[in-house]
Amino acid sequence: MRIVELPEIQQVLTGLDVLPLIEAGFVAYSEGRAVVPPVGELILDEGETHIKYGFIRSEPWYVIKIASGFYKNPERGLPSGDGMMLLFSQATGQPVAALLDRGHLTDVRTAAAGAVGARYLAPRKVARIGIAGTGVQARLQARHLLPITECRSLLAWGRSDGKLEVYRRDMESEGFEVAVTKDPAELGAECNLIVTTTPATEPLLQAEDLRPGTHISAIGSDAPHKQELDPAILSRASLVVADSRAQCRERGEIAHALDAGAISPDQVSELGEVIAGKAPRRSDDDQITVFDSTGVAVQDIQIASAVARAVGIAAS
Amino acid sequence: MRIVELPEIQQVLTGLDVLPLIEAGFVAYSEGRAVVPPVGELILDEGETHIKYGFIRSEPWYVIKIASGFYKNPERGLPSGDGMMLLFSQATGQPVAALLDRGHLTDVRTAAAGAVGARYLAPRKVARIGIAGTGVQARLQARHLLPITECRSLLAWGRSDGKLEVYRRDMESEGFEVAVTKDPAELGAECNLIVTTTPATEPLLQAEDLRPGTHISAIGSDAPHKQELDPAILSRASLVVADSRAQCRERGEIAHALDAGAISPDQVSELGEVIAGKAPRRSDDDQITVFDSTGVAVQDIQIASAVARAVGIAAS
Repeated sequence: MRIVELPEIQQVLTGLDVLPLIEAGFVAYSEGRAVVPPVGELILDEGETHIKYGFIRSEPWYVIKIASGFYKNPERGLPSGDGMMLLFSQATGQPVAALLDRGHLTDVRTAAAGAVGARYLAPRKVARIGIAGTGVQARLQARHLLPITECRSLLAWGRSDGKLEVYRRDMESEGFEVAVTKDPAELGAECNLIVTTTPATEPLLQAEDLRPGTHISAIGSDAPHKQELDPAILSRASLVVADSRAQCRERGEIAHALDAGAISPDQVSELGEVIAGKAPRRSDDDQITVFDSTGVAVQDIQIASAVARAVGIAAS
Repeated sequence: MRIVELPEIQQVLTGLDVLPLIEAGFVAYSEGRAVVPPVGELILDEGETHIKYGFIRSEPWYVIKIASGFYKNPERGLPSGDGMMLLFSQATGQPVAALLDRGHLTDVRTAAAGAVGARYLAPRKVARIGIAGTGVQARLQARHLLPITECRSLLAWGRSDGKLEVYRRDMESEGFEVAVTKDPAELGAECNLIVTTTPATEPLLQAEDLRPGTHISAIGSDAPHKQELDPAILSRASLVVADSRAQCRERGEIAHALDAGAISPDQVSELGEVIAGKAPRRSDDDQITVFDSTGVAVQDIQIASAVARAVGIAAS
């Protein structure tokens, strides 16, 4: 088994075009070419760990991804997230590679999903990008939108002045013109492409705050207790798109909206269907659209396999 | 993260007393001190992979164990089983060690469970040990019975003359007096401590073949489609003991017997309860007893933690 450490992973990532990989993964998933069992989950006193795993038929490897979030780690001087991706032969079960990415590949594949959602669902003319959150994902989401839209005006929402200020500086250095706010309603009023990246457990964005034509990629809610969007946003939306219909019944914004009776299951399409033209994209500039990203193993499979190939692991 | 390869694992295993570790794990599990989510499972064309994971409260680490069985591997000159055990900090989620044991620790903790079952449930005087199967587990189960019983007479059942002959030779070199048979009824007629280790999907042992006073440790059936025992054996048994009551509702001999209506759930006790004196042991030499081993993550947690300590990993 080849052990690949983070610096080598980061190096090969610069040469990978991640968005098409993630798109292909979602299409494989929605076409039933992927086997993705339910997420494994460990809830500990100070954190949680997810195990996402599965394979795409006709590919050489299956992937088991382990990702943890321990929210007190920063107090200890450690990053809150950690993780690794393990690849095994579909033919023999033998371990092929351990990508010790410390959670970075999960961060990247998550950001890529948000950007793919925006590529197919955002309005043609983005007035301003709204980002809720000031953490790693708030940075990566903005960066992954660069090839998707020409808009470079960004409004960031956060709770901490200090973190907003650092975020502003960082994103300005990446080419955005950045304003910050502590009022989430301002995101809705000014932005028509919004990405929410917080660990919120109560709705942050309200339906009445949104302007017509807004697309939201809802990224933060990946566990049943997390929620960033008022369910009324989903009921007002013309298109509600899940990364995985099955998974979004259990977790994410769609689960909350279904529980609240705000939408019915037959209103939910899957991103892989949208990409493949089997479900509608946005059809006019006044529609509200929501992409609910809970994180599907097929994203891990795609990015892990691409990194493994890029570091020279043969598909034998 | 410390990477520990098989030779080092094998070396430290010689200094570990595995049975008490496994006993303590079962007790922790039955007392509710362990968190063990349902088994993750991937079914591929040529094999299957199980993910078992969890933690014991008050211990430093949580463990994720990956074990695969690919039954055509021997045709390719590869062992059918493979696997690894990963340890992470319960406080921070950070990876601590990867024990690249190729499945050996799973084999050992499984054999230890069979021996623990025999320690608490086998009749005082073992006339003859019966082993169904001729593979790795058939060898390890016999070896782990050496400290449990003085009996050195062993009858092995298998389908292949060649494999039986190799098994006979191997186990004779470990101090057993070995006879072989291709008739499973002979195991029932001659042995009162039987260990079944096959991947059978239909019952191998029938109730009418057993002598009174027999204990069976049923090891092979770890997946819903596997079965080694006639459900009537469980209905005839005075004691039916699960490694995990929850897991044995879904897989193993107990699941089949429950499905067949041969036993009711309230007849099933747990090995950890038996060890702790909270459920009955064998009370006379004529009882039939069955221990159903489906393999619980708590065994993996215990053996992985012990190996990690033995190779010098500190519980910080």
